[in-house]
Formats: sequence, structure tokens, C-alpha cells
Amino acid sequence: MSAIPERLAQQMAFIIEADKLKNIFRQSYISDESRRENDAEHSWHLALMAITLYEHANDPELDLLKILRMVILHDIVEIDAGDTYIYDEVHKQDQAIREQQAADRLFGLLPEDQATEFRSIWDEFEDGESPEARFAKAIDRLHPMLLNHLAGGKTWAKHGVVASQVRQINQKIEKGSETLWSYAQDLIQKSIAAGTLPDQ
Amino acid sequence: MSAIPERLAQQMAFIIEADKLKNIFRQSYISDESRRENDAEHSWHLALMAITLYEHANDPELDLLKILRMVILHDIVEIDAGDTYIYDEVHKQDQAIREQQAADRLFGLLPEDQATEFRSIWDEFEDGESPEARFAKAIDRLHPMLLNHLAGGKTWAKHGVVASQVRQINQKIEKGSETLWSYAQDLIQKSIAAGTLPDQ
Repeated sequence: MSAIPERLAQQMAFIIEADKLKNIFRQSYISDESRRENDAEHSWHLALMAITLYEHANDPELDLLKILRMVILHDIVEIDAGDTYIYDEVHKQDQAIREQQAADRLFGLLPEDQATEFRSIWDEFEDGESPEARFAKAIDRLHPMLLNHLAGGKTWAKHGVVASQVRQINQKIEKGSETLWSYAQDLIQKSIAAGTLPDQ
Repeated sequence: MSAIPERLAQQMAFIIEADKLKNIFRQSYISDESRRENDAEHSWHLALMAITLYEHANDPELDLLKILRMVILHDIVEIDAGDTYIYDEVHKQDQAIREQQAADRLFGLLPEDQATEFRSIWDEFEDGESPEARFAKAIDRLHPMLLNHLAGGKTWAKHGVVASQVRQINQKIEKGSETLWSYAQDLIQKSIAAGTLPDQ
């Protein structure tokens, strides 16, 4: 067996560790309601949304490659920190600390230059201020709303979530895309009309 | 409810239909051996490999954004055509026809310009001749080898696959990356040494 160069060995260690994201399950169900979605397939679906929908971003000059790097990497920290439900105010309190520690460990598996690069992309996503982060966060919010609408509001019902909460939490979609926020509001109205999301 | 613009409605129809990729299961197990991997999480893992490993491509000038579009889209056709095991010579015979029909239907959900664009990216991947397609195919082959190695050769054993077949089928990795082909050969040697892949 030939010796694996150290740099490649570090990169592969990161890729192998990342396999665990397939076992981090989210609150959302996939659209046929058969099971909950995991973070790996959620991240893929966001990447598909990014390449299909980025023309609807408020800022027409944004860098699609950066958005893709963001959505591919955005949930990796949940391997250590777990998935925190967006309506869970208790666990959201220490979410940032748990995720920072996870980022230190997981990106730290990579060669130093790449660890710095990936961490900086993840930090930019978390900050949510650049045009790319705003759009990535917009689709990261729209995606579970869409699945939940398709799955008959299963997760909303389980957690007793009502329309005003969905509107409040997801209004930030507007910062990334006014068009997608209109679409999201339409989903909320349809879910209310279908009786799968209580108005109050 | 506001009217959804026709273009956005078509894009969302494609994104919703693509959710079915999460129910297309591959032969590979995830690394903890608990279950088989689905196409959506496989596609995400390839995207992660692409952003981490593209420096090892034979051609240093390749377009990472194109590679990402390829790996995000490459298995969508399996929603209709199903997953064809790479060592299955019988089902490989009509695989191309089944996948072309699937591409017509699935990309056909999109607005016409985008259908043409996505189809052209998928065709380029399938052709496997451009530098980006060679690299995307290299990681698409390395990925199941890696999982199979980590999962103790479970799928090789199930299908009676031996080392010479693994070498023959995966040698094309070399066309995209000599470095990753060296790594792949090392995986084969390690699996033989571990007794999880028969030499003959």
C-alpha cells in the first residue's frame, strides 16, 4: 500500500466524519410523510433550490458558488451539536456555543488553510448579513415550510405551532428574496385554508 | 392568496418532485452499516467531496461551479429510472434509455430555458468527457468504494464482487484524478488485507 499524503488523509478524515450527518434527523418529514428528513438530504435539497431559484434573490449580483458552499456546509456542525428546532426557545439559548465548539472540531479535521476557508464560509452564513448568506438562509427557511405544507402540517401540529409564529420566524426570507417570501406567505395561507395550520 | 408567477410555479414543481430522490436507495450502506444510503444524501456527500477535493483533479483549470451543478443533478433521473448497481450487467443494458426518458420528464418540469440548461449539464456528466465530468465521475465512483470499505465490504460480499472487478470498474477514476485513483487502489488493498474483499 502506498503512503497517503497527509493533506489528502486529513481531507478524507473530514469527508468520512461528515457521513454522520446522514443520521442527524430534523423535525420535518419528507413530502410523502413516511419519515423525518436528515440533514444530509436537506442540504442536498437546498443546493438544488439554490441552483434553481437564485435568480429570485434580491441582489442579482450574488455569487452562486459561495451560496452552494454555504448550503453544503451549513449543517455539518449538527453532527456534534444536534438539530435545534427553530421554534424551540429553550435549546436555542445555548445553540450558538454548541455549534461553535462543533465547528472548531469538525473543520479542524481539515488541512489548516481549508479549515480556515470552510470556517469562514460557515461564519458568513451564520452571520446572515452578506447577500449570499441572506439568500442561503432564505431557502433554508423556505425548505422546511414547503415540506411541512406538503406533509399536511405534521410538524406544526406536533409542536402546536400557529400561523403567526410561522410568519414571525420566517419573515427573514424577505431579506434574501422578496419573491420567495411572497411564495412562503402563499404557502401559509394555503395551509390555513387546508386546516393544517391553525390561524391562531 | 396571491398568484404564483408561472415560472416560479414550474421551478417549485421541479423542486417538489425532486423530494422523491430521498426514497431512491442505493446498494451502498452508510458508514455505520445501519441502513442503505439514498440518492439525495449521496449527492450531498459528492458535493462535499467536490469542494474539498477538487484541487486533486488532473486538470487544475476546472470549473467547480459546473462540477457542483453536475453532482447535485446527476442522480435526479433515478426518481423514474431507479438506481442501477454498477456491477449489474443485465440492468445496465437498458439503463441509458430509461434514464433519457426520465431526464425528458423531470427536467421538462422546469421553465424551458432552465430545462435546456440542466439537461445539458446532465448530458455533459453522462458523456464523461469534459474535465468537470471526469472529475465528477471520479468522485461518484470513489464515494461508494469508500463507504463500502468503511462498512466492512457489506455490498461487495452480498453481490460476490472481487477485487479485480472493483479495479476494472473504478479505474476510470484515473481519468479525473490520478491522486484519487491512488487513494482508491489503497482502499482496495486495505479491504483485501482486512479480508472484506476477496482478491479473486
